[in-house]
Amino acid sequence: MTASKDRVTAAVLIIGDEILSGRTQDVNLNAIARYLATYGVDLAEARVVPDVEQEIVDAVNALRTRYDYVVTTGGIGPTHDDITADSVAKAFGVTAPEHPEIMAMLRERWGEPNAARRRMAHVPEGGSLVKNPVQGPPGFQKENVFVLAGVPAIMRGMLDDVGPRLRTGAVVVATTVRVTGTGEGTIAAPLEAVAKAHPDLSIGSYPFFAPPDVYGASLVIRGRDPAQVEAAAVELEKALAELGVENVSRLEA
Amino acid sequence: MTASKDRVTAAVLIIGDEILSGRTQDVNLNAIARYLATYGVDLAEARVVPDVEQEIVDAVNALRTRYDYVVTTGGIGPTHDDITADSVAKAFGVTAPEHPEIMAMLRERWGEPNAARRRMAHVPEGGSLVKNPVQGPPGFQKENVFVLAGVPAIMRGMLDDVGPRLRTGAVVVATTVRVTGTGEGTIAAPLEAVAKAHPDLSIGSYPFFAPPDVYGASLVIRGRDPAQVEAAAVELEKALAELGVENVSRLEA
Repeated sequence: MTASKDRVTAAVLIIGDEILSGRTQDVNLNAIARYLATYGVDLAEARVVPDVEQEIVDAVNALRTRYDYVVTTGGIGPTHDDITADSVAKAFGVTAPEHPEIMAMLRERWGEPNAARRRMAHVPEGGSLVKNPVQGPPGFQKENVFVLAGVPAIMRGMLDDVGPRLRTGAVVVATTVRVTGTGEGTIAAPLEAVAKAHPDLSIGSYPFFAPPDVYGASLVIRGRDPAQVEAAAVELEKALAELGVENVSRLEA
Repeated sequence: MTASKDRVTAAVLIIGDEILSGRTQDVNLNAIARYLATYGVDLAEARVVPDVEQEIVDAVNALRTRYDYVVTTGGIGPTHDDITADSVAKAFGVTAPEHPEIMAMLRERWGEPNAARRRMAHVPEGGSLVKNPVQGPPGFQKENVFVLAGVPAIMRGMLDDVGPRLRTGAVVVATTVRVTGTGEGTIAAPLEAVAKAHPDLSIGSYPFFAPPDVYGASLVIRGRDPAQVEAAAVELEKALAELGVENVSRLEA
């Protein structure tokens, strides 16, 4: 899709050795991508970094200066490997003192919290809290960076408090022309012609293959103008019919 | 884990609008992480970028200069959005001519291939092929960058031809001390003490939470010396017992 002044962009930063070691299958990236899309915010890049302060600092700074928003996941608990809040503070060149609201929550839950739990109250100066409706302490927002939990159910709960704070873009709509039993190589030329005729749309071809013999491609047309998306899909279907391609169906999104 | 001269590192670069749009849940990162681990290669970073040439070029160059290996997934098919081979070539400052072996495969399969299918024969100068035992054309290796398919079943097939080419490290072993019904905040202090006593190990705490009331943490100890990993786990179990923590179990890996 061509860049537009109206485009609102975001990056996801997944913080966690457990994703990189292969111990855990990340599902947060997908959930955040889908959530941001409902606000017309394009996820433009994602990174996964280990629980290492300098790595987090460098990634936060690379991403927050390049995109409108950054959403991080992971590393906000009470253990020694939970270094996200302090690292984000360092990226912004501020400290991360104990936030009085979180301290109050911890005291209500635990009495006087121990040193480990007090880590969960660290919020970079100037940050605001992101509600956690599920379990445990809140996340926070520091300027254009949202810091959320890594546990998926908790992360998703926190997202509800992120959307209302976003500058929203025009929502992207999508339609899919699905071709079964014909390879991408057969349909690439008409697909490219339609893509070239609609530079404002994003048109992707995603092959599928289920052994031994189910194959084809999902031709996904995405854009902010529903009429143009539909027009491109109709042009593509017409071109495929002219080529004699069979087993073409339409899926919404 | 502290850096070591013997540590062999890799990065994964996922190329694909469909991951960033949320249409597709990536599963390749996890498969690659687990595969590399069996060769003692640490996945140190991962990035997801869109199907945009400059984004791919920049990410390939950032990662290939920093890590021992880079594994890319996606964008090697015949359609207009398959720009990985040409982008990787550009990152290395070389061209990506049609590889004679791939052209021979395409001719055997399709007769004289059309322009779209010929794209699949593009391999950066000096690259070698990575076998595809599943379906379609091969991937390739250009210096320390391995370029694989995005379709998971095909990607996994190609991985079999990657491992034997890697400089291998000492394999990381892991053990997990699982604590159920006790929060991370209660066990953080002894956990940190064990972590500090074993700077060569990577010790992470991964909370779990299943509403309404199942919670706890997996305390994962990883390292290259199995005896030290086991010693740390025993120390941790002893410290947890002294704290009066119940429902502690051991899981391998």
